[in-house]
Amino acid sequence: MSDARHIPAVTVSRLPVYLQALHAAAQRNIATVSSNDLANAAGVNSAKVRKDLSYLGSHGTRGIGYAVDELTREIALVLGLVTERAVVIIGAGNLGRALASYDGFTRRGFVLTAIVDSDPAVIGTHVGDLRVEPFTLLAQIVRDRSVEIAVIAVPAHVAQDVAQAACDAGVTALLNFAPTHVTVDPSVSIRTVDFSSELQILSFYAQRANAAVS
Amino acid sequence: MSDARHIPAVTVSRLPVYLQALHAAAQRNIATVSSNDLANAAGVNSAKVRKDLSYLGSHGTRGIGYAVDELTREIALVLGLVTERAVVIIGAGNLGRALASYDGFTRRGFVLTAIVDSDPAVIGTHVGDLRVEPFTLLAQIVRDRSVEIAVIAVPAHVAQDVAQAACDAGVTALLNFAPTHVTVDPSVSIRTVDFSSELQILSFYAQRANAAVS
Repeated sequence: MSDARHIPAVTVSRLPVYLQALHAAAQRNIATVSSNDLANAAGVNSAKVRKDLSYLGSHGTRGIGYAVDELTREIALVLGLVTERAVVIIGAGNLGRALASYDGFTRRGFVLTAIVDSDPAVIGTHVGDLRVEPFTLLAQIVRDRSVEIAVIAVPAHVAQDVAQAACDAGVTALLNFAPTHVTVDPSVSIRTVDFSSELQILSFYAQRANAAVS
Repeated sequence: MSDARHIPAVTVSRLPVYLQALHAAAQRNIATVSSNDLANAAGVNSAKVRKDLSYLGSHGTRGIGYAVDELTREIALVLGLVTERAVVIIGAGNLGRALASYDGFTRRGFVLTAIVDSDPAVIGTHVGDLRVEPFTLLAQIVRDRSVEIAVIAVPAHVAQDVAQAACDAGVTALLNFAPTHVTVDPSVSIRTVDFSSELQILSFYAQRANAAVS
């Protein structure tokens, strides 16, 4: 396997899609997939798939393709999914609850270890198998359960404080669902998922499509 | 204003972030912002901000910056947010409900017009001010209420069928939250938000961070 540090960010962002296609193939007892199969799954062309996978040292076999089990293992290894990573969800509102029960959230190398909230009316209620714990216990939870990733599902106006608290507690990565930009120490990885930004980007293309037909 | 069709996709994807920063500035009665202010909000450098905004024909004023109200109007215009766009959410499970009540979802140029589901036990229940309507009425809802965007919040195994039904009904854009790749006619814009893919991407960088310190 090549040095994971040299894989371009755009390639990294496509690896989960390939992995998903490989899981689907394995479920259907398919032993090999072509770069074309993976290209269809990812919505890119097959040359891009071959280039992406070459960063992993996987070149497939001409006329046969890639062995599903081998490629699954290689991608999982590069993504660091070989050991399970503990996750805490901060915020047990509608979104936090949706994420906690999200189909596929816990299946792919992640263990949802805790969900915390600061609202006394919510603390102690259940979300699936988990009981909502007090936000004040965050540092202790992160330390005792070796939590690496915090998912931020709180309103925008408290997101920065919550992100900082998670970093202070010792998480190494943040997934932010609050519709605001959050700044943390550069040593902590952060990704933001903003639904309304996604809608606004769609709006741009929808408008362009309308303009093209009128 | 320049022709919106020539704005690069990466610039389009940053415009909602700038817009958010401008809204925040307006709320604090700030009349002008610098490219540096916007750069901090978007997590890019100020040269990139100036380049992005130059595609809109906005060049700011040296030493003063950009007028908040003017730039807000220009970005909203480019993104097609001047007229409100009607949205339907398909799927009234945890996620659909979370999205329906999502803070900021309806504030920014979108009107949530309907939420539909196929489960008889869910149809007729309320999500905020909306009553869940039958999925079988989708085509009628899209037509009668001029719905442009469908948000797909259903399990992965039915996502493709639901996406096709939404396209057949006449929507021009899809926001897909199901953890699967969905293929539709190229005339329909589609964006996929996959939580577990985001986590897997984070895992890659978290792992790299750990390797760097050990």
